[in-house]
Amino acid sequence: MIKISEAINIITKEAKLLEVEKVHILSSLNKILAEDIYSKDNLPSFDKSAMDGYAIKSEDTKNCESKNPVELRIKGIIKAGDYYEEEIKCGEAIKIMTGAAVPRGANAVIEIEKVNTVKDKLILNSVVKKENNIIKMGEEIEIGDLAIQKGKMIRPAEIGLLASLGYKYIHVYKSPVISLIITGDELIEIDEEPFMGKIRNSNEYSLRALIDNLNGKYISLGVVSDDKNILKEKIKYAFENSDIVITSGGASVGDYDFIEDVLKELGADIKFTTISIKPGKPVTFAVYNEKLFFGLPGNPMSIITAFEEFVVPAVNKMMGKNNLVKEEITVVLADDFKGKKGRTKYVYADIIKENGRYYAYNVGSQCSNHLITLSRANGIVIIPADIGSVNKGEILNGKFIFK
Amino acid sequence: MIKISEAINIITKEAKLLEVEKVHILSSLNKILAEDIYSKDNLPSFDKSAMDGYAIKSEDTKNCESKNPVELRIKGIIKAGDYYEEEIKCGEAIKIMTGAAVPRGANAVIEIEKVNTVKDKLILNSVVKKENNIIKMGEEIEIGDLAIQKGKMIRPAEIGLLASLGYKYIHVYKSPVISLIITGDELIEIDEEPFMGKIRNSNEYSLRALIDNLNGKYISLGVVSDDKNILKEKIKYAFENSDIVITSGGASVGDYDFIEDVLKELGADIKFTTISIKPGKPVTFAVYNEKLFFGLPGNPMSIITAFEEFVVPAVNKMMGKNNLVKEEITVVLADDFKGKKGRTKYVYADIIKENGRYYAYNVGSQCSNHLITLSRANGIVIIPADIGSVNKGEILNGKFIFK
Repeated sequence: MIKISEAINIITKEAKLLEVEKVHILSSLNKILAEDIYSKDNLPSFDKSAMDGYAIKSEDTKNCESKNPVELRIKGIIKAGDYYEEEIKCGEAIKIMTGAAVPRGANAVIEIEKVNTVKDKLILNSVVKKENNIIKMGEEIEIGDLAIQKGKMIRPAEIGLLASLGYKYIHVYKSPVISLIITGDELIEIDEEPFMGKIRNSNEYSLRALIDNLNGKYISLGVVSDDKNILKEKIKYAFENSDIVITSGGASVGDYDFIEDVLKELGADIKFTTISIKPGKPVTFAVYNEKLFFGLPGNPMSIITAFEEFVVPAVNKMMGKNNLVKEEITVVLADDFKGKKGRTKYVYADIIKENGRYYAYNVGSQCSNHLITLSRANGIVIIPADIGSVNKGEILNGKFIFK
Repeated sequence: MIKISEAINIITKEAKLLEVEKVHILSSLNKILAEDIYSKDNLPSFDKSAMDGYAIKSEDTKNCESKNPVELRIKGIIKAGDYYEEEIKCGEAIKIMTGAAVPRGANAVIEIEKVNTVKDKLILNSVVKKENNIIKMGEEIEIGDLAIQKGKMIRPAEIGLLASLGYKYIHVYKSPVISLIITGDELIEIDEEPFMGKIRNSNEYSLRALIDNLNGKYISLGVVSDDKNILKEKIKYAFENSDIVITSGGASVGDYDFIEDVLKELGADIKFTTISIKPGKPVTFAVYNEKLFFGLPGNPMSIITAFEEFVVPAVNKMMGKNNLVKEEITVVLADDFKGKKGRTKYVYADIIKENGRYYAYNVGSQCSNHLITLSRANGIVIIPADIGSVNKGEILNGKFIFK
């Protein structure tokens, strides 16, 4: 039985960055950029007006210093998207819309609200400084500049930036394909009525939802009855067709728990079979041809806990993410929580921010079958292995669950 | 010009909860449950063994009190999923796997690690209490109990719980359909080379990514040139075919900014046209037949800011979410930040947790054209309207961006 941190270290050491794929920018959301993106253009690619106003020569407003109004002749209008061929000369102005290209000869834009006009005459009463309201060519980024660094997560801002730089396709790290194998003769379909000894296959749905929550891909290999040969075939197929293989159940010490035997027969390198965590102790982790195997426990609460704690860091590493594990927070216990020494206990709780501190409330039975407890919780209180029950007012680490 | 909080109040007051739809549980992830879910079964639906071990009568172990070992006859084995017809009698035991139904007559399970066996003899050395290692029928939830309350967000835990309760389809609130209309003669496709006066249509991509990030749906109505009649037709179509209409650009005071006129002609109720925020001031919000209209600014940084600040709360409200706006945090300024009085300033920054506090670092120009600044940031420092520049060491509110 190894410690949680040790298990995560082993897992993230074995999880290797996946291959790179070329995707449309809209398909790259929340993936990790696998190349440095350099600008092929200046942004903006021309001197641009920041305001609706008049493009003028700053020199023409010098007379305003001595409080004399200046009159300029309005030659026309430049809309955003237009290109004005002529050069602006002394005594001339041109109306210009926000985002439009500043014409040759002009070196300042005066806001529409700050001037008066009489027919085609523009009347100015104050000096307009050079470059006033002009966004200079290349001000945001210049040709050849590094725009987005390899390793960055693509968010809406990066997608907008990539679009403005003319990138329609980019290289990102692939998401792992995860095979799901659910074991157990006791499982029935979710729309069947449970009869004696049978339970509905909820783990399949929990796992699919957990993977959907990561924007991951899964292959569902269905329910395997407690038959060693069938299980072996399925796991072999899964290793050949995915990056991560997850089994649910069958990893205990019972007479029909074949996972460890099958892995040995296939020649997989078993790294560990139990972790000092409650719930989620019976987790088998193995590696086979750089593919990762997670034998997760069959209890509904245990499997979700083990997935979030041990599978997610592997997925993050494979996708190229920087933060592999979830950040812990400091929580004040608002209730007593029962526990016993031995393993690190993940107690599901309702964590609420009050006056700038996080308080953890008890949400009931922590029996590893009770998914309803998890449904009442938004976080976890972490009780260290050497501590048993903890009391209201004590301060411990915790974390939020899901995303 | 109204305050940010006032704008959000008006918007969330006008945003109405959308209709309910029936979806497969796997399609309900991160949506809001629109019905109370009651349990149609007991969970578990039978007394169940929590361990691999032996099902026995607790009474049979009484002799162990006087340190005499007790021998029981092992009658067989019950796997998970099996149902054992016979009743267990005094002096009998049956091997039982985790999750299997405890047979009639037995009232305790002793773990496999705590006993010895010799052929079909089970040897016990200590008293086993009644109900030891037995998960009682209905322990998690009983028939008729409320399992998940209307209004809850469906997470992987809820999907697992719904599956275990036999719910394959549930009712959730719909996500709004959002129409996107991009205005501006200056726009070219993202794979075109920018020529004089033109820029690539990056806002369309930013908006699509922002909506994808909310798991929302959009209808893209393309780029509309600066023509009032075409714009009117598009907005009319959008009102008829979506819940929210978003335009990008055309909402300023320029000669080609027709948004306000068009809304008036269509009979929409314009609630406001400017908000005291920088970037993102020119936001037009209107209502037409319970459909919401957001005229967002055309600057790449402004449009993302305005979407996150003003559109997201409306989407949250329509989907039935509880938390409409993002939580603010306290940040310590790690750098000076320039600003001027007048509007509330959202300064994009890199917020890093150090020794339990959030520190905000300056990431450069806050010009509302510069998407590259947003790309360098993970959060916002909020500088109140009555404050100008702020200095290193000062404490302000802030928040993280995106999800």
